[in-house]
Amino acid sequence: MDLGMTDRVRPLVQQVRDMVENEIAPLDAEYHDEIGRHPSGGRFALTDRQIEIMEGLKAKARERGLWNFWLTDSKRGKGLSTVEYAYLAEEMGKVGIAAEVFNCNAPDTGNMEVLERYGTDAHRERWLGRLLKGEIRSAYLMTEPDVASSDATNISLRAERDGDDWVLNGDKWWASGAGDPRCALYIVMACTSPDAHKHSRHSMFFMPADTEGVEVLRPMNVFNNDDAPHGHMHVRFTNARVKAEDLILGEGRGFEVAQGRLGPGRIHHCMRAIGLAEKALELMCRRGLTRQAFGKNLVELGANYDIIANARMEIEQARLLCLKAAWVMDTEGNRAAAPWISMIKVVAPLTALEVVDQSMQMHGAGGISQDQPLAAMWTKLRTLRFADGPDAVHRRQVARHELRQYSNEPR
Amino acid sequence: MDLGMTDRVRPLVQQVRDMVENEIAPLDAEYHDEIGRHPSGGRFALTDRQIEIMEGLKAKARERGLWNFWLTDSKRGKGLSTVEYAYLAEEMGKVGIAAEVFNCNAPDTGNMEVLERYGTDAHRERWLGRLLKGEIRSAYLMTEPDVASSDATNISLRAERDGDDWVLNGDKWWASGAGDPRCALYIVMACTSPDAHKHSRHSMFFMPADTEGVEVLRPMNVFNNDDAPHGHMHVRFTNARVKAEDLILGEGRGFEVAQGRLGPGRIHHCMRAIGLAEKALELMCRRGLTRQAFGKNLVELGANYDIIANARMEIEQARLLCLKAAWVMDTEGNRAAAPWISMIKVVAPLTALEVVDQSMQMHGAGGISQDQPLAAMWTKLRTLRFADGPDAVHRRQVARHELRQYSNEPR
Amino acid sequence: MDLGMTDRVRPLVQQVRDMVENEIAPLDAEYHDEIGRHPSGGRFALTDRQIEIMEGLKAKARERGLWNFWLTDSKRGKGLSTVEYAYLAEEMGKVGIAAEVFNCNAPDTGNMEVLERYGTDAHRERWLGRLLKGEIRSAYLMTEPDVASSDATNISLRAERDGDDWVLNGDKWWASGAGDPRCALYIVMACTSPDAHKHSRHSMFFMPADTEGVEVLRPMNVFNNDDAPHGHMHVRFTNARVKAEDLILGEGRGFEVAQGRLGPGRIHHCMRAIGLAEKALELMCRRGLTRQAFGKNLVELGANYDIIANARMEIEQARLLCLKAAWVMDTEGNRAAAPWISMIKVVAPLTALEVVDQSMQMHGAGGISQDQPLAAMWTKLRTLRFADGPDAVHRRQVARHELRQYSNEPR
Amino acid sequence: MDLGMTDRVRPLVQQVRDMVENEIAPLDAEYHDEIGRHPSGGRFALTDRQIEIMEGLKAKARERGLWNFWLTDSKRGKGLSTVEYAYLAEEMGKVGIAAEVFNCNAPDTGNMEVLERYGTDAHRERWLGRLLKGEIRSAYLMTEPDVASSDATNISLRAERDGDDWVLNGDKWWASGAGDPRCALYIVMACTSPDAHKHSRHSMFFMPADTEGVEVLRPMNVFNNDDAPHGHMHVRFTNARVKAEDLILGEGRGFEVAQGRLGPGRIHHCMRAIGLAEKALELMCRRGLTRQAFGKNLVELGANYDIIANARMEIEQARLLCLKAAWVMDTEGNRAAAPWISMIKVVAPLTALEVVDQSMQMHGAGGISQDQPLAAMWTKLRTLRFADGPDAVHRRQVARHELRQYSNEPR
Repeated sequence: MDLGMTDRVRPLVQQVRDMVENEIAPLDAEYHDEIGRHPSGGRFALTDRQIEIMEGLKAKARERGLWNFWLTDSKRGKGLSTVEYAYLAEEMGKVGIAAEVFNCNAPDTGNMEVLERYGTDAHRERWLGRLLKGEIRSAYLMTEPDVASSDATNISLRAERDGDDWVLNGDKWWASGAGDPRCALYIVMACTSPDAHKHSRHSMFFMPADTEGVEVLRPMNVFNNDDAPHGHMHVRFTNARVKAEDLILGEGRGFEVAQGRLGPGRIHHCMRAIGLAEKALELMCRRGLTRQAFGKNLVELGANYDIIANARMEIEQARLLCLKAAWVMDTEGNRAAAPWISMIKVVAPLTALEVVDQSMQMHGAGGISQDQPLAAMWTKLRTLRFADGPDAVHRRQVARHELRQYSNEPR
Repeated sequence: MDLGMTDRVRPLVQQVRDMVENEIAPLDAEYHDEIGRHPSGGRFALTDRQIEIMEGLKAKARERGLWNFWLTDSKRGKGLSTVEYAYLAEEMGKVGIAAEVFNCNAPDTGNMEVLERYGTDAHRERWLGRLLKGEIRSAYLMTEPDVASSDATNISLRAERDGDDWVLNGDKWWASGAGDPRCALYIVMACTSPDAHKHSRHSMFFMPADTEGVEVLRPMNVFNNDDAPHGHMHVRFTNARVKAEDLILGEGRGFEVAQGRLGPGRIHHCMRAIGLAEKALELMCRRGLTRQAFGKNLVELGANYDIIANARMEIEQARLLCLKAAWVMDTEGNRAAAPWISMIKVVAPLTALEVVDQSMQMHGAGGISQDQPLAAMWTKLRTLRFADGPDAVHRRQVARHELRQYSNEPR
Repeated sequence: MDLGMTDRVRPLVQQVRDMVENEIAPLDAEYHDEIGRHPSGGRFALTDRQIEIMEGLKAKARERGLWNFWLTDSKRGKGLSTVEYAYLAEEMGKVGIAAEVFNCNAPDTGNMEVLERYGTDAHRERWLGRLLKGEIRSAYLMTEPDVASSDATNISLRAERDGDDWVLNGDKWWASGAGDPRCALYIVMACTSPDAHKHSRHSMFFMPADTEGVEVLRPMNVFNNDDAPHGHMHVRFTNARVKAEDLILGEGRGFEVAQGRLGPGRIHHCMRAIGLAEKALELMCRRGLTRQAFGKNLVELGANYDIIANARMEIEQARLLCLKAAWVMDTEGNRAAAPWISMIKVVAPLTALEVVDQSMQMHGAGGISQDQPLAAMWTKLRTLRFADGPDAVHRRQVARHELRQYSNEPR
Repeated sequence: MDLGMTDRVRPLVQQVRDMVENEIAPLDAEYHDEIGRHPSGGRFALTDRQIEIMEGLKAKARERGLWNFWLTDSKRGKGLSTVEYAYLAEEMGKVGIAAEVFNCNAPDTGNMEVLERYGTDAHRERWLGRLLKGEIRSAYLMTEPDVASSDATNISLRAERDGDDWVLNGDKWWASGAGDPRCALYIVMACTSPDAHKHSRHSMFFMPADTEGVEVLRPMNVFNNDDAPHGHMHVRFTNARVKAEDLILGEGRGFEVAQGRLGPGRIHHCMRAIGLAEKALELMCRRGLTRQAFGKNLVELGANYDIIANARMEIEQARLLCLKAAWVMDTEGNRAAAPWISMIKVVAPLTALEVVDQSMQMHGAGGISQDQPLAAMWTKLRTLRFADGPDAVHRRQVARHELRQYSNEPR
């Protein structure tokens, strides 16, 4: 069970870290300050400067071969293991726009995975190449406003067969990335057979974002943040038509596609969350060592040593659990890794939220303001307690897995 | 130790509760939606509709005698006790704009208290009457960006004597309410004698907001929220002049003024936090009873019963501690109440934050979005862990008070 | 809602506190050291010295009128309110044997309450007088080894009618106080109608401890402690006969008796737990101020200030919640107080356990040894998380009560 | 960073697990029941049956080559890595007497390490061989009653040179294993140069347990448990003489010896704690699946799924952290591993205590009684929060290590 950095990945980690720290981080604030400055006034339109920043960085990353690391099980990528990718993703988690620079950002990676695994050649030709090059973006439309989507059997957006088409009606929200003007592809889960067995009711579709009858209603805000230009959009489908061949894998197999997609996506979020936590701890230490009150450095006051020690202990544990989950994925596959992914999906965001919260507190009120990245880190992490399944559902999975080993025993 | 509602306050609580629920709450969203719609485009300019909403509600409250309840120790007010006021403040805490409607909002109440206790007749005449009528607003400028203001002896904004004036230079931030265009009065702490004993270095000043040399640089954001039109402003003083007679109470007595001001202000925040927590628990229960997953109401799933029970237990305890602190203020005065206020200042925000966090989780991702009031409640509460002293400083005070009773014993 | 000490109770509290501190505490260790020194070798036989200590203290308490305070709603007692009693019980909680000295110890108080409320004149004559004088002891036999007794409908000890008798067969355990050689009365819950509605299956009986067919099998240990000579006994009934007139209140009304008994008993435990916590905090502070490491007093190191502050905050909140529950009992009765009692039943032991745990940690390894009272305090508190209902059941009750107010609303 | 089981250790783990489960566990209760049954009445004398049980098991283990696994860096042992040993130690942690059966129990392993590393040939000849064969036992005497021994510079037991001897005076306590009648060797830390620099004041000695002037005063109890026949003894030295050649390594080098000894010892405790936690979780699951209340299995009630999931997540993280610490010891040595050992020394006992506590709660009151192993598991774990340094000291070490990387930066 080798959870360490391999010799192969070590120099990549160093390159990514350097680029994040020295080239991406210095432009991150400027990129975000541009939001809302498009001549149209729209927050979800990219300014020339934003495009220049992002495409410039992407060009450098592509040139240096720091690109598409997430393709861990494909001939198209570098053939890294999930464990190796974890170390890279952690570095990308430290700065807001970094993952996109390396073409490793959600939800595109998961969507590319769907194309790779379940798409036809036609799908791959149409979408996958451009996504792999970072030319377009994509979104994944699962969650709905009117039902508890944590139980995915509740998903109610309706797709009805009409000739060679499926006709979709209903609302989706929290379609992350659907705000981006470059977003060209939606992957949509819909109910195709309401009367079938509850795990066979749903199907998944590829759909061009500009399909008629698709309307982006509004961005969902996360603690007042619309996360422009990425965005988490509320999207309405009114008689929106998809071709039958764009139903993925087969009618009633939506859950199968979702499961295949979610494992890697969940763990990538967690890897980046560890990076975020590391960054927050670093900021906490630096602040505590350079600010004085009551005649001492802040670190010397109150429970601050314990707070720092606890943060370090929690981060190390969360990282190791994340690496272990990655290792199980690499060696035993997504299904075997499911309980491990559930575990880290609960642990990583909670751990990172706690560290960021403590770091904010060490910074005083400035810590929750625009002068520090901490509040934005916190809100991003807070969404992770819902994204790809709320904590409660993952805990439930872990407990069921634990109990299963005993429940067939004679009593 | 009567911590209950008195017969006198009970009907007032009912009236306030009804007005908050039936008249204020329905307008709260509209009021906030107006932000940024002023013809000038400014977020800190009040639109006609905002003025209409707020002044309309205030007129009703004033008419009904639901006004200035916070004047607990003054002939000017209703002569309520702090305990009685607690029950009213709790109701006001449940909706964002409610406290202002009853002229009970921070920082005005604390500032009026300073005018009442430490102001000259001239000061009272100039400022107090209009504040009591709700015609103007005020701000309290203490915290600074460049020093750990949790240790107030660090305060460094400089006031130097020049003839009949004091000349102020330096920066303040988190001047809550200074964004409001009606804000006419600043109360400013400055360092007047850098070489004096550390508790005699500072003085407090009344200063008109429109003084030359005073510049509002920017709003401080709280988790992306500028809290317009109230605002928490970053203010710069460049050779700003105050008249000598506007130095409050006496040179070097800034701490005395601050202490007298902070006790009531801190506890009022806590009372409102309890109300917020109650509101969040109510929303959690309603949601849990009306949303289904896995064939059950959400409340029936996972640890939700325990989460609800814990919320109830924590809220009840926090409320009782708040009432006890209020009672000590009423019966033994602010100085004796100091450790009690420190205790509730730590407990109330933490308790309410936890309840709101759990309530958000029960709501799914919608819980952190603009569709629910929970995220705004959370961010408001999060600032309370800094405002009027961070948790760490209050814990320190509580511990010192606890240890003092033993430390003079012979060993 | 007066939760304070009344003028009536204040001098009693002072007298009890003085007696506990100056007369009982100094003999507590000796009393416990006597355990196992009876010539018979038995740990549940009282030595002459134990009798001398206990009866001597009881005589003093009786003489001074410090006796049977718990009789809060009876002409037989001092007529104190439950709130008043809380302040007395807290003092008794600080030293192991104190409650018995004042004839206020569990389970006798609860059992006397049953006699008072539900006993016939004959029962009262036979048992109550001697219990009130402290001449005999009693036990309450509810919990059973073979079923989850937290759901009392599970209680399975069988009582079958045979002529004028009931014949009991089955096991009870955790019969607290049944180890004491003076224990003369058992109150036993048994299943009398297994086929009735689940809340009408059980009946309660008075039974002399020396009934034929009753066998005390063994003491149950609590973390290695048999709690001699009080004891928590495992008792077996083999064709043990009770007279029909000793069935309390009526066949099938066992739950009614249990409910009437449990409210006060639960809250008395909690009051004493608060006293225990206060004692542990005192020990923690004294230790921290007099022990040095790394050149400082322990209190100055690590998170100790925060630990002390948190302990103070938690204790104050728990005490107030306990007083509130008592006040609801006094003013609205046991049924209305039920959710309040459930709340404090969860909160008080957990709070006190945490404070004692921290106090042990401040003491170093000595803190968990026989040289300090802390380990014994901890184990006593740990049993309270089971006694009279485990935390989980009380949380469930609190949640159900909370949700009830919403569940009948139209949706 | 291979943290997994190697092919070499896997069959050993299986053999140890089988032997613990099938051969040791069934005799564990009987072994403990024998305590106090020696004809002398002493609890620290071994009965014939105890000797028979233990020596019988040891003979089997020795025969099978399941012996002295802990010798991770020595030609004398199997040459396992610390990571490999971790998997074995975890299995041994599950049953009370198991570690001794494999000659892997504290404090003997640490003491043998001292002999191996720092002893002369004479020392090794006299003590090491018999310890390696399990013929004698040993104790490590560090902690003292009168000083905060968490700061080892406080150690005050005095050794004064007198001719060819050192003469020791003072008290030690918590000398684990010194109760065992087979305990033949003490390793004692003493102050030899009170005026030297604080890290050079102390020296370490080998001393026969039967040295004149050495008196075992009493066992220290842990939550009422004297842990006989092992024991944690309070030992008094009155003019006890050691030969000069039995001063280990050199005068004033006591700290060096202590540091070399403590790393492995600490981590072995943690490995066993993980095993204990696994056992407690297993018991919790089995109980929850087979006990009913309110018409359901206990696991289906309240927060029990979440409790089980949390236990699983915490255990996995603690295990991985323990393995990582072991790996750093293996690859970079004890000094580099110090912060990792401090981390796991805090994490493992706290994690295991929490799991055991929850397991007790799932068991009802029986869970804290002699009918379940849980209370004994809990008390053993509770001592680990003191043994080899209290949590607070280890957190301090972790924080200092964390801050060191920033503190030399230019500011």
